Parts: sequence; C-alpha cells; structure tokens
Amino acid sequence: MNEITPAGRFRDAEAAPAALDKRYREPVASSPAALPWSETLSVLLGHRSVRAFSAEPLAEGTLEVLLAAAQSAPSSSNVQAWSLVSVEDPALRAKLAQIAGGQKHIETAGLFLVFVADLSRVQRLAEREGLTTEGLDYTESFLIASLDAAFAAQNALTAAESLGLGAVYIGALRNDAAAVAHLLKLPPRSYAVVGLAIGRPEPAVASDVKPRLPQPGILHRDVYSTAGEEDVLARADAHALAFRAEQGLDATPWTRLALQRLHAVASLKGRHILRRQLETLGFPFK
Amino acid sequence: MNEITPAGRFRDAEAAPAALDKRYREPVASSPAALPWSETLSVLLGHRSVRAFSAEPLAEGTLEVLLAAAQSAPSSSNVQAWSLVSVEDPALRAKLAQIAGGQKHIETAGLFLVFVADLSRVQRLAEREGLTTEGLDYTESFLIASLDAAFAAQNALTAAESLGLGAVYIGALRNDAAAVAHLLKLPPRSYAVVGLAIGRPEPAVASDVKPRLPQPGILHRDVYSTAGEEDVLARADAHALAFRAEQGLDATPWTRLALQRLHAVASLKGRHILRRQLETLGFPFK
Repeated sequence: MNEITPAGRFRDAEAAPAALDKRYREPVASSPAALPWSETLSVLLGHRSVRAFSAEPLAEGTLEVLLAAAQSAPSSSNVQAWSLVSVEDPALRAKLAQIAGGQKHIETAGLFLVFVADLSRVQRLAEREGLTTEGLDYTESFLIASLDAAFAAQNALTAAESLGLGAVYIGALRNDAAAVAHLLKLPPRSYAVVGLAIGRPEPAVASDVKPRLPQPGILHRDVYSTAGEEDVLARADAHALAFRAEQGLDATPWTRLALQRLHAVASLKGRHILRRQLETLGFPFK
Repeated sequence: MNEITPAGRFRDAEAAPAALDKRYREPVASSPAALPWSETLSVLLGHRSVRAFSAEPLAEGTLEVLLAAAQSAPSSSNVQAWSLVSVEDPALRAKLAQIAGGQKHIETAGLFLVFVADLSRVQRLAEREGLTTEGLDYTESFLIASLDAAFAAQNALTAAESLGLGAVYIGALRNDAAAVAHLLKLPPRSYAVVGLAIGRPEPAVASDVKPRLPQPGILHRDVYSTAGEEDVLARADAHALAFRAEQGLDATPWTRLALQRLHAVASLKGRHILRRQLETLGFPFK
C-alpha cells in the first residue's frame, strides 16, 4: 500500500488561501489566516474535470477502494437504493460513448462506472415476502434512490482524486436512459443516474480548476434573498471570462452559458423525453 | 490554521484493512496488501451519522470552507443549479425540527445547512434577457438541480468530517417541502433537497460505522445480474444483526428494515404528497 501524493494538489494548511483563490478568483469573507483546513479539503477544492487519460493501467484494488468509499456515503435509512455497474467490455463502452454524443473518454478511461438508482432490490425483497410494492411508485422513492446514487458517486469521485486520478461525470447517459438500461440489462425500477470516467490524467493535456459563483451567490442566511445578485453575477461573468481566456476558449460570460444550457427545450439535448423514458423503466412519479 | 486530527479515524495506509473490515465485516475480494490508500479514503470510509453535538462552538471560517468544498463539487455544465441556506435563527431551526418529526439535533447543531435545488437563478437570467423558460419545466432540469445539490452536500459532509466534525443528513425536510419552502422564502423553481446538521460530536455519545451490503450486492460487471443475491443478502442480514446487537438495538435483519422503509405508501412517512408539493413549487415534471 502506498500513500500517493498527487501532483498539483495543495498539500499544506498554508496553501488554503491559494486553493480558495483558484476556486473563486476573489477573496472570501473570512480572513484566510483563520480558516480550518485538512488534507481532504485540498483534494475537494482541487477538483477539475479530467477527460484525457493516459494508457497506464490503474493500481490493483482501485475499483474495490472506490466502491468502499462510495458505499460509505450516507444512504437514506440505510436502504442503499443504488447499484454500480463497472463497464469493462470495449464494445459496450463504445455504445455508451455513442449515446453520450461521442465522448471518447468513456472508451479510454481506466474505469467506467455507472451509478444506478435502484429500487429493484426492494422490489425483489417485497416479492419474496409477498408484500405490496406500491410505495416504490412515488416520486419520493425515485428521489431517495437518485440521491443515494449521487452521494455514492461523489464519494467515488473524491476517492479517485485523492489517489491522484482524474475523473469526469457523464450526465449524457441520460440522453437515452432507455437505451442505457437495455445495454446494461437494468431491471425495472432502476435507471442510470450518471456515469463516471476515471483514469490517470494524461500529463500532456492541461486541466484547471474552474471558477464558481462567488460565495454570496450561493449562500443565504436563514431565508433566501436575491439582494446583491446582479453584482455577484457580474463578478461571476468576469471570473469566467478570465478563466476562458486562459484556456483559449471563446469569450462567453457565465450567465449566458448557464442560461443557454437550460432555458429552452432544445437546450436539453434530447433529454426532454427523460420523464417518459423513466416511466417505461418503472418510475411512475406518483 | 491547524490540521485537525479527528479521533477514531484510520490515519495510516496500514489501517486500510481495518477500515474495510469495519465497513463490511467480511473480506473484500482483493488482497488488502494491494490496496491503494489515502488520508481522504480514511475520512470517507470512517463516515458515521452523528446526531449528538457538544455545545462547543465551531472554528471561525468553518462555514466558508465547507461552502468552498461544496461549490468545488462538479456541476452539470457548470450551471450551479443549487443554493445553500444556512439556518441560524433558533426559532426557524425549531420549526424545521418540528417538520422533520422532532429531530432535536437540528436545533443543537453548530451549523444547519439546507441544500436547495435551484432553477430560479436561471429563471431570473431568462427574465432579464426576455427569453423562454420552458426548458425548466422538464424532469431533466429537476434532476440536474437535485444532483447538483446532492454532489455539493456530499462534499460539505466530507469536508466537515475531515475537520473532525460530525454530521447527519436530514431527508425529513421533505416531509413537508411546501412548509420548508415557505419558511426559508424559497422562490418558485426551487426546493429543499436535504438538510445537513453539523457539529462537534458529543464525546459521551458513541456512534459507529454502519455495515453496508457486501460489495457483490452493489457491484455488477458490464451488465446487471442478480446471481448470488440471496447469499449476499443473508450475509448483509448477519452483519446488520451483529452491528445492532453491539449497539443495543433490536434484532431486525437488514432486509426487513430496507423493505419496511419503502414498500408501502405508509412507509413514506407522509412524503407520498411530495410530487404534488413539488408541482406547486414550480416543478411540473414534464
């Protein structure tokens, strides 16, 4: 066993302000000298999406420790209403990459994990005992399973990054939830929430920490308030433009990017059919 | 700034098998000697729900670093479709505790954070530009916002635990999503996904790592398979009974607990109305 020190992480408590500067590109409210800090905070703050992977294989046991981390995430009432499909077959990976709009990193990643919201296990338990399964028809049950899968996925991502690996979520599996369920032979009452491509970052391809909204854009005290939002959004746009210039991307401000992604039906990249597909997969949204 | 060493965590790579033993109570497939490991994996594997908090205040800057960790989680297309409400007012905390079925730790926690799925920011951006907001009506947009909030929440939880703090999710805010939205003055197109109570663990109250399903119960290779599930579930029941005996809890096997929690409408603790409430909050599930 070896403690891996990933390059480019902030290892020391003294580096806390640097990590925050990279994330926000402006000071946070508190004095940095007063901030509590940990090794794990350095990992969390250092997140960036990685889509370019080297061919070097992952260490033996990587899947097992990532799964252990994922399973250690909280689960609503410990029901553990999720499953993990590790996709290893190259032909299957290619089909998933196609569904996801041609994302080649699904094929080149050392691991490709699909996090499944899974009420089918409870369904099987109920059938074994001859009990009703009506509770599984409700939106709350859909949400419990989806959140269990999300918490687990986020732990797997953090665990991977703590080992010096890079990763990226693949939400585009929801471009065709029915086709993914068919390919992975998912039983009724389960669906693929999100994929996670994991591998050793290709050193020749740079990736960097993406700026987020200034803290007052997300944080509300006691009650939600939009006071000062215009100023915060202007700062978010300025930080995004600076980041995009560094990355050689076009000069589109954050507010326009966020708006374009969701406001119209066409923005959803075909996922306007998700509701209908989820119904056919056994989620009636009662 | 100080690097806090939480009591009861596994600090060393050599402790990896101990962390896995506590989580699974049976060997995992790989040889423990081959497992990659990190400080952060010790934090993730060491998770347990903490509901008893000491009165000692949290360190200055705790909220800011937890928020920075939360915001560092991936966000679908960087839309950041979530918000955080930090509830400080004791009267408001008391009302939320009541909605959650009398969970006193909402009142005694050093921080009580509410993670909000928030499409209202994009709604405001669209209104500013005179654009349509039809895309926000779709189940995919509901899911993007809910997942963004969940990834952020899980990072905040991990960050808190890395600082030696204890925490527990409060899904019971969904017992009455409309009342919570009213209390926190959430705008249309937003809802409280989950609460997170955080504080210094009360040393006099023990908590321990809860066993999870053996890895083959969650993990599937290439395609979903229920082969061997009966055996895995029997082991899960045995591990749960051993844990519950240690904790002085009644001898209910895991399969019965999981089944009871979801199979019937009555199991949902009133949350069968969630769908209707979410519609009134601006999520039509198109």
